[in-house]
Amino acid sequence: MTELSVVRRKIDRADRASVDKLAAYGVATVHEAMGRVGLMQPYMRPIYPGANVSGTAVTVLLHPGDNWMMHVVAEQIQPGDIVVAAITAECTDGFFGDLLATSFKARGARALIIDAGVRDVKTLTEMGFPVWSKCVSAKGTVKATLGSVNIPVVCAGALVNPGDAIVADDDGVVVVPSAWAEKTVAAAAAREANEGDKRAKLASGVLGLDMYKMREPLEKAGLKYID
Amino acid sequence: MTELSVVRRKIDRADRASVDKLAAYGVATVHEAMGRVGLMQPYMRPIYPGANVSGTAVTVLLHPGDNWMMHVVAEQIQPGDIVVAAITAECTDGFFGDLLATSFKARGARALIIDAGVRDVKTLTEMGFPVWSKCVSAKGTVKATLGSVNIPVVCAGALVNPGDAIVADDDGVVVVPSAWAEKTVAAAAAREANEGDKRAKLASGVLGLDMYKMREPLEKAGLKYID
Amino acid sequence: MTELSVVRRKIDRADRASVDKLAAYGVATVHEAMGRVGLMQPYMRPIYPGANVSGTAVTVLLHPGDNWMMHVVAEQIQPGDIVVAAITAECTDGFFGDLLATSFKARGARALIIDAGVRDVKTLTEMGFPVWSKCVSAKGTVKATLGSVNIPVVCAGALVNPGDAIVADDDGVVVVPSAWAEKTVAAAAAREANEGDKRAKLASGVLGLDMYKMREPLEKAGLKYID
Amino acid sequence: MTELSVVRRKIDRADRASVDKLAAYGVATVHEAMGRVGLMQPYMRPIYPGANVSGTAVTVLLHPGDNWMMHVVAEQIQPGDIVVAAITAECTDGFFGDLLATSFKARGARALIIDAGVRDVKTLTEMGFPVWSKCVSAKGTVKATLGSVNIPVVCAGALVNPGDAIVADDDGVVVVPSAWAEKTVAAAAAREANEGDKRAKLASGVLGLDMYKMREPLEKAGLKYID
Amino acid sequence: MTELSVVRRKIDRADRASVDKLAAYGVATVHEAMGRVGLMQPYMRPIYPGANVSGTAVTVLLHPGDNWMMHVVAEQIQPGDIVVAAITAECTDGFFGDLLATSFKARGARALIIDAGVRDVKTLTEMGFPVWSKCVSAKGTVKATLGSVNIPVVCAGALVNPGDAIVADDDGVVVVPSAWAEKTVAAAAAREANEGDKRAKLASGVLGLDMYKMREPLEKAGLKYID
Amino acid sequence: MTELSVVRRKIDRADRASVDKLAAYGVATVHEAMGRVGLMQPYMRPIYPGANVSGTAVTVLLHPGDNWMMHVVAEQIQPGDIVVAAITAECTDGFFGDLLATSFKARGARALIIDAGVRDVKTLTEMGFPVWSKCVSAKGTVKATLGSVNIPVVCAGALVNPGDAIVADDDGVVVVPSAWAEKTVAAAAAREANEGDKRAKLASGVLGLDMYKMREPLEKAGLKYID
Repeated sequence: MTELSVVRRKIDRADRASVDKLAAYGVATVHEAMGRVGLMQPYMRPIYPGANVSGTAVTVLLHPGDNWMMHVVAEQIQPGDIVVAAITAECTDGFFGDLLATSFKARGARALIIDAGVRDVKTLTEMGFPVWSKCVSAKGTVKATLGSVNIPVVCAGALVNPGDAIVADDDGVVVVPSAWAEKTVAAAAAREANEGDKRAKLASGVLGLDMYKMREPLEKAGLKYID
Repeated sequence: MTELSVVRRKIDRADRASVDKLAAYGVATVHEAMGRVGLMQPYMRPIYPGANVSGTAVTVLLHPGDNWMMHVVAEQIQPGDIVVAAITAECTDGFFGDLLATSFKARGARALIIDAGVRDVKTLTEMGFPVWSKCVSAKGTVKATLGSVNIPVVCAGALVNPGDAIVADDDGVVVVPSAWAEKTVAAAAAREANEGDKRAKLASGVLGLDMYKMREPLEKAGLKYID
Repeated sequence: MTELSVVRRKIDRADRASVDKLAAYGVATVHEAMGRVGLMQPYMRPIYPGANVSGTAVTVLLHPGDNWMMHVVAEQIQPGDIVVAAITAECTDGFFGDLLATSFKARGARALIIDAGVRDVKTLTEMGFPVWSKCVSAKGTVKATLGSVNIPVVCAGALVNPGDAIVADDDGVVVVPSAWAEKTVAAAAAREANEGDKRAKLASGVLGLDMYKMREPLEKAGLKYID
Repeated sequence: MTELSVVRRKIDRADRASVDKLAAYGVATVHEAMGRVGLMQPYMRPIYPGANVSGTAVTVLLHPGDNWMMHVVAEQIQPGDIVVAAITAECTDGFFGDLLATSFKARGARALIIDAGVRDVKTLTEMGFPVWSKCVSAKGTVKATLGSVNIPVVCAGALVNPGDAIVADDDGVVVVPSAWAEKTVAAAAAREANEGDKRAKLASGVLGLDMYKMREPLEKAGLKYID
Repeated sequence: MTELSVVRRKIDRADRASVDKLAAYGVATVHEAMGRVGLMQPYMRPIYPGANVSGTAVTVLLHPGDNWMMHVVAEQIQPGDIVVAAITAECTDGFFGDLLATSFKARGARALIIDAGVRDVKTLTEMGFPVWSKCVSAKGTVKATLGSVNIPVVCAGALVNPGDAIVADDDGVVVVPSAWAEKTVAAAAAREANEGDKRAKLASGVLGLDMYKMREPLEKAGLKYID
Repeated sequence: MTELSVVRRKIDRADRASVDKLAAYGVATVHEAMGRVGLMQPYMRPIYPGANVSGTAVTVLLHPGDNWMMHVVAEQIQPGDIVVAAITAECTDGFFGDLLATSFKARGARALIIDAGVRDVKTLTEMGFPVWSKCVSAKGTVKATLGSVNIPVVCAGALVNPGDAIVADDDGVVVVPSAWAEKTVAAAAAREANEGDKRAKLASGVLGLDMYKMREPLEKAGLKYID
């Protein structure tokens, strides 16, 4: 059963225009717009603050301690892609550093999402190549074992299919299934539409209790006020 | 037994003048001044470096995945308060974001301390609203289950009674029981009084061994020097 | 059996010229140059980004909750040293703050590596005294129990002998055995020699697959391309 | 501020008859009967399966690496008590072994709940002295630093006042405030009263959906069935 | 976007005969037979040792702190199924106890796999209803928020589609995609066929070095023997 | 620098008679006898309760996800040895199962200590081959990368030199340096000599406070009794 050692060259990427709009809404809004699903686990953190990207996923499945397939996935990157790297078991090794980042960037990649470690973070920060990872680790890897490229992977608790939209910022990483990209943009836009108004009201001292009309349901649910 | 679904409106806040002085001493000094107690666990980290606050606690107890009571606690905030949010079980969800922060800030809150996740951290940083939390997570919550406001809670391993003084900075978060606020200020001041002198001596190369007269007790305890 | 309560005053430090060169290569390169060994675990993080040091280890073994020996080790510091502190059991207490840092700095220490907590991180950052630690914690310690200075210790999973070279940066901490310092410099220099050339090729779009001639071994290993 | 180094000799213990009844209901039922509060965190595990106790809390606050106060608390034990040990900071040391267990047992203690490590677990198991702890560790401790006995403590995330009722079994540990012991017995009894009937129905194949009349609220909430 | 609140009633279950054979091979062998993929993370542990099952997955996606959908999934169970429960965010609550187990068992379920907590483990053990879970926790849940049944879920790092084969034993939990069930049986059988022979050789003192002819490749890879 | 890919065939094993006596004293006593050092971290747990061994260490250093060297170390085992396996980075893979155990046992190994995962634990338990490990995991490994045998390694936070004595039981694992084996037996025997007497006193109700004459030092340290 050698199904795993494959590289899928042709994948259906989510609609580019929709994907590119998602970054502006941010991870929290997109995740809410999707019905509170699709988030990677919160241990996934950016290597520097302020990065904010969206792009289409090319996926790679690696084995612990072996980054051979990172070179294979590089060839499959198209401009606007984000590489999503999953490992078959928990591993904190540094699978990615400044040389690979140079290559990924040259191919048009916008970011790396990896459920393991990354190194050369100072140089990556200077290059402006953002990485969301489980940890930072200088631990090097070997190149001896095959994995796969562009198969469905589970990364930090989220299913990622090749071509899905990925949104990442300081709040974390969310996966938008390819077919949902367009309607997620619409739903996110709708969520944001009246946020300015809400924010102004709250800033003026209006309470969410009143703005969202929560007092009655709270009372019905049994909340008691005491002095 | 529905004792938990209550909102206590009247609480005795620690002496304002004392509370406001505590920030300047910082968490490490206040914790020492109290006899090395009252600290929250070290996983509580600020969302941006350099924040340094003290204030009076209003407390809220939430259930996992449900932030309904955050709107209820907002109404109980008075200027100079710090909201302390505990959860009945471990949870990493993002219970708090920029809209709630706008509301809390408008009510006069100085910070949020939450034993769970927070989101919109980039906006919170821009707003200058500091949060100490267990993690950052975009995971949204529902509004379906009651909790309580201004009851004693355990947050990140520390007991917090409503009205207690809270001090938070880059070193973590410490709780000063309301009745101890004034004497803690005095004890912290006493600790700091001769620190400048000690620092100058150490900077000039004097050893703590000599400054604290440790050589004799170390020898008595059995320490041996070898070459 | 009191072997542990000793202070060794005379230690053989790694060759100073070699040690001083290691910082420039950085942790990832040095670790690779040594054959991918010697790294501390990735939970060891700097208290501020951008610090980059190398130096010779003076070691100290402490017991949980007790920092007495930190004052003892201060006396053994020589200019160019890095203090490496191990604890006999897991502990997150803040064993080190700005007063000790003032003393260490006055003695010529370049950094502290500690498998536990540190406090006063804001002041340490302002002082420019870098610390790599397991966590930040304001929790104070007592001075009641002996440990040892300049014995071999295990710190964050790595064996450190007094006098070994230590390299630390944003990627973590690596230990270079004293006898290996010189040849590690040579090996690191060799690794870096052709990195500029590689980086230029990758930046121009050449793939690692071709640059490292991986296509044939990948095919031999069984990798299949599909559409 | 030396408030912490105290031993309170007289405490009000929860009603013995009520406390003794709680074990039979078990932790899960008692916790539900109290309104889903009072649980210690789930990392607290018994050293052997099948233990099931209830008793009144005598509390002890220890510092990391120091078990001196365990001998002090022994004297305060009365038959039917359970010792609850909290530590001022995270620590995995083995604060308790077979000699202390022999002493505790002789004084009438029913169990130990400790937010740290325990050792000699094979002997403790043979003695039938149950311990719920964070971990098992052979790491020994010193006797150099004071703590306190019978003050309120936070143990594994739960507030414990001296005299509170403690219930512990394979599901974990729950704290029942002293004043609630009697009514908690009543509420637990009420919960269990119709459990036999429910169990019989479910065993016969009746669905919770029907038994609890959930179909309509689920539909109202928006649940859709598809084929 | 309400796609998540659905219950799929018709699912294609993996071939029953194949599924039923998988238990005997065990998790380690099945995972190897599949090419070392499909494993849930190792934190998933059985509540009692010795359980060993295989079955077809019915899946349920829950929100933190809310087990309402456990009653919904119960109705979809067919004899030979194993319920696989995923949560949208990390949670340690006890979503499942003896009443639900009674219901699941009555419907023909063989086990529960849940990426959260379980309670009443003593009773579950007596009932012989095995559960693999992240932890044991008495923490109760509410019934207020919808999730879904029989959609693809990520459970403990593994993708599970409704109808997939699940194998679980003391070594953990592995997922066999529905379409692979038959050939995985064949591959597992092939692996086991000559294990008896290998075991006999090893037991007689023959080394793996010789049995697997590793001496030459080890030497070629550069292994040196020294005295 | 290929120093790591070596197999040292001749090692000096600790005195057999001393090593064989250590098991009876157990880990906690041996660790105390050595001055409270040498323990592995408490996450190292036995795969079944009640195992209790001592032996001489043969060491192996592995890379994440690769167990090739386990076959190499097998050849170096002599009767009475315990294999100690360290990994160059954190890894939870299952490096060891029943076939390797059969081989190790045939060579005379008494146990395996591994800072990673183990599988086939049911079979290992039936065979009576004890393993202390970080976790249980069915995740398989490859055979592609060299490591070393019989070099000093750091395993679960403890330094192990080939030939050192290892003691392991339900309380964990302790390392006794080869040169200390004999005197550690003596020190452990001395510790145990009067334990029976102490135990009898404590069982009769005598307090440690009196038996160890702690009342005066406690009072001197400032302990206050209140009612």
